[in-house]
Amino acid sequence: MARRKLIVVSNRGPVSYGRDDDGARVARRGGGGLVTALRALLEHHDVTWIASALTDEDRAVAAESGGEPMPEQTRAGSPYRLRLVAHDPLTFDRFYNVVSNGTLWFLQHYLWGLAWEPSFGPEFRAAWHEGYVHANEAFAAAVVEELDREPQAAVSFHDYHLYLAPGFVRERRPDVRMTHFLHVPWPEADYWRALPADVRRAILQGVCANDIVGFHTERWRSNFAQSCKALAACSTQSAVYPIGIDAAEFDALRESEAVLREEAEITASRPELLVVRVDRTDPSKNIVRGFRAFALLLERHPELAGRVRMLALLDPSRQALAVYSDYVAAIEREARSVNERFGTPDWQPVDLRIDDNFAQSVAAYKQFDVLFVNPVFDGMNLVAKEAPLVNRRDGVVVLSENAGAFEEIGRWTMRVNPFDLVEQAEALYEALTLPAGERRRRAEAIDTYVRAHGVDAWTETQLADLDRLSTILS
Amino acid sequence: MARRKLIVVSNRGPVSYGRDDDGARVARRGGGGLVTALRALLEHHDVTWIASALTDEDRAVAAESGGEPMPEQTRAGSPYRLRLVAHDPLTFDRFYNVVSNGTLWFLQHYLWGLAWEPSFGPEFRAAWHEGYVHANEAFAAAVVEELDREPQAAVSFHDYHLYLAPGFVRERRPDVRMTHFLHVPWPEADYWRALPADVRRAILQGVCANDIVGFHTERWRSNFAQSCKALAACSTQSAVYPIGIDAAEFDALRESEAVLREEAEITASRPELLVVRVDRTDPSKNIVRGFRAFALLLERHPELAGRVRMLALLDPSRQALAVYSDYVAAIEREARSVNERFGTPDWQPVDLRIDDNFAQSVAAYKQFDVLFVNPVFDGMNLVAKEAPLVNRRDGVVVLSENAGAFEEIGRWTMRVNPFDLVEQAEALYEALTLPAGERRRRAEAIDTYVRAHGVDAWTETQLADLDRLSTILS
Repeated sequence: MARRKLIVVSNRGPVSYGRDDDGARVARRGGGGLVTALRALLEHHDVTWIASALTDEDRAVAAESGGEPMPEQTRAGSPYRLRLVAHDPLTFDRFYNVVSNGTLWFLQHYLWGLAWEPSFGPEFRAAWHEGYVHANEAFAAAVVEELDREPQAAVSFHDYHLYLAPGFVRERRPDVRMTHFLHVPWPEADYWRALPADVRRAILQGVCANDIVGFHTERWRSNFAQSCKALAACSTQSAVYPIGIDAAEFDALRESEAVLREEAEITASRPELLVVRVDRTDPSKNIVRGFRAFALLLERHPELAGRVRMLALLDPSRQALAVYSDYVAAIEREARSVNERFGTPDWQPVDLRIDDNFAQSVAAYKQFDVLFVNPVFDGMNLVAKEAPLVNRRDGVVVLSENAGAFEEIGRWTMRVNPFDLVEQAEALYEALTLPAGERRRRAEAIDTYVRAHGVDAWTETQLADLDRLSTILS
Repeated sequence: MARRKLIVVSNRGPVSYGRDDDGARVARRGGGGLVTALRALLEHHDVTWIASALTDEDRAVAAESGGEPMPEQTRAGSPYRLRLVAHDPLTFDRFYNVVSNGTLWFLQHYLWGLAWEPSFGPEFRAAWHEGYVHANEAFAAAVVEELDREPQAAVSFHDYHLYLAPGFVRERRPDVRMTHFLHVPWPEADYWRALPADVRRAILQGVCANDIVGFHTERWRSNFAQSCKALAACSTQSAVYPIGIDAAEFDALRESEAVLREEAEITASRPELLVVRVDRTDPSKNIVRGFRAFALLLERHPELAGRVRMLALLDPSRQALAVYSDYVAAIEREARSVNERFGTPDWQPVDLRIDDNFAQSVAAYKQFDVLFVNPVFDGMNLVAKEAPLVNRRDGVVVLSENAGAFEEIGRWTMRVNPFDLVEQAEALYEALTLPAGERRRRAEAIDTYVRAHGVDAWTETQLADLDRLSTILS
């Protein structure tokens, strides 16, 4: 792999700063699929990473460095530069909570019931102009300054927070090579029409300022190409790069002390059959319907009483937004209702744990008989790739047809429509009763596929395409 | 026009039977755009109309006739035959309330917030198999019997209640000529995916059993063609036939005694400027956001205080469904809130009337300065065509870009995004202050267009296309 100069731009960076108990500054490595995936870039290339200052300490670091990039290094010791963009708190709240997560996330996952929401009043206009546009301008200004330092660098934007930055950069640096990767689904044109006309046009034109736009699936890619054409009469190259995972990392993790300790706790209490789900508490993850489908399974198959449990490990998410705290309440209500209806003194069918505990998740990955991944819509869903890799029981995956991962590994899973409780209950039953030979065949096929399509390949394919395009265009 | 044999099939027929005060049977002519539009067919062709028995008296009539078609005639005296299909009440409830209006209507207007709804459990399966499928089989059986009587007749199906009937007829009469007209929007493929896989496949394959499927707009037509391909690998001819209105009927209506009486009441109390909306109380009609946009107009233009009123004439609809009664409550709450916030002892900005009074609607059509038509999604929206035709004040139309009518008359209206309150408030202001010459130019252009594209042309174009196709295929 050729080592090349890259400017990576994402809202969340690979580290965030804080203070330890003695008041000393510490860098904390962030989680999340995006940051994990991009970490591979840092090992192989000469990277300047531009990200938002998210904590008070981040803002202090940004102020001290005067906006200059600072030397950092990965856990493995590879050096890179980190440049933090500090937004004022009101700008950031509008950019991040109102527009990015409060509006675009809902749009991109088809979560609005259009009779009631969205409703774009003057507050949204202010959030758009003084939040999202401003923040994107700040990112673009930082990119342009870094390009002045390294005029040969290519720029790699990530996700729905940064739709406008590529256009702002292009205006000032017409010849720069830029890619943008979208980690979320891309809905069809009619749904984009819900945005105010000037907003949707600005977004689509901003994204089209990139040389290549990447997606996890052909489905999102073709929705993108069609909506650009239908709504903004713009176009650009687009391509499919399904994100992979770092198999070596998970192979090491599954033998780690923390995971073994969590696994011992699970094995000590697990019944014969374990259905596992691991998710953020996001309405797009379809957790409430999942419990209802599980209840339907128990209703239709009383012989499973006492023998099966659903272990739901849920990472609390975006609790600053009312929809998200309401969703957690609904999750808790539904889990309680299943336990009250079917539970006995010796057996609770649902084990709900709302907690951020990655070691516990990996332990559950090892122990599932059925992995339940039923999102309403999901850009990719990495759980569907991570869990089979470390599982020890030839567990079967029940997978939503609206998860990006379905395009790759769907043929070895039980396909479900996330809105269809009957189908989900039937798929859970089929998965729990699948003959051993078939279980093994499917588990091995997924394991082989996931190992052959790792995260290094994901980044290198994108860079190779960008090189090819540069050659053609130069 | 060649007079030809036609079998028209729709859930709601052109008349429904009841009893008058003396207990004598009376036929009541139904309203609604569909029935009005199809009435033109009855004048010109030899029609047998098959419809559901909707009232107790309808069921009595169906029982007495032993399922045979009965002679009926239009108000103008043209004869036709009416055959009523009686469903048992549970079947009808499942077919009409659960599947057609409780599910398909929401799907076709993008009304679901997919995080929470739909949720297809065993009750939906029962409603589908024992309601929708059964009712469609009953319609198909009636069609086949009528085809036995008149083997040369063509069949014309209408709307989303009858997606399966064409397939059932085609199985038994492979050579019959069938058209289907969809009066509602057709959403894009991703949204159709929300339906259980077997249900969406059955629907698409059922519709594809027709020779031609008609839509109001190119937008719905191309969504249809794409979703058939993406979800059921089926296809058929499809075409755009925007429905027109009967201009002569409205020319007569506007001078009728009932309308003049209602108009006198409106003129006696109206302020200088009148914004009018006329709708069913349906969540797809966007009435609540409409009041919010009007409030924003008043907030931004205090000079309009006392000078403008929004007259909202709303026909109560489908109150058996909880969503609909909730929506009426929200409408009333929002109207009250605008009046409490801006009203004075002499002036109430919103005049909300929830009532079924067509003469009053036509009177309001005559009196509007601005007609406000802002649906979330709407197959066509006939108000946008009817009201300008009878208006006396060169009134301006503010029109949602998601109303089917927008494809035809949009260029002479103020275009609005139905989710964008700011844009709607600005459009209302612009419409209220448009110079007289421009108002007149637009009003005349719409009037000319609507008169030139009447309801006769709508039916005759469809029949001509069917003839052409028959010639090609035979």
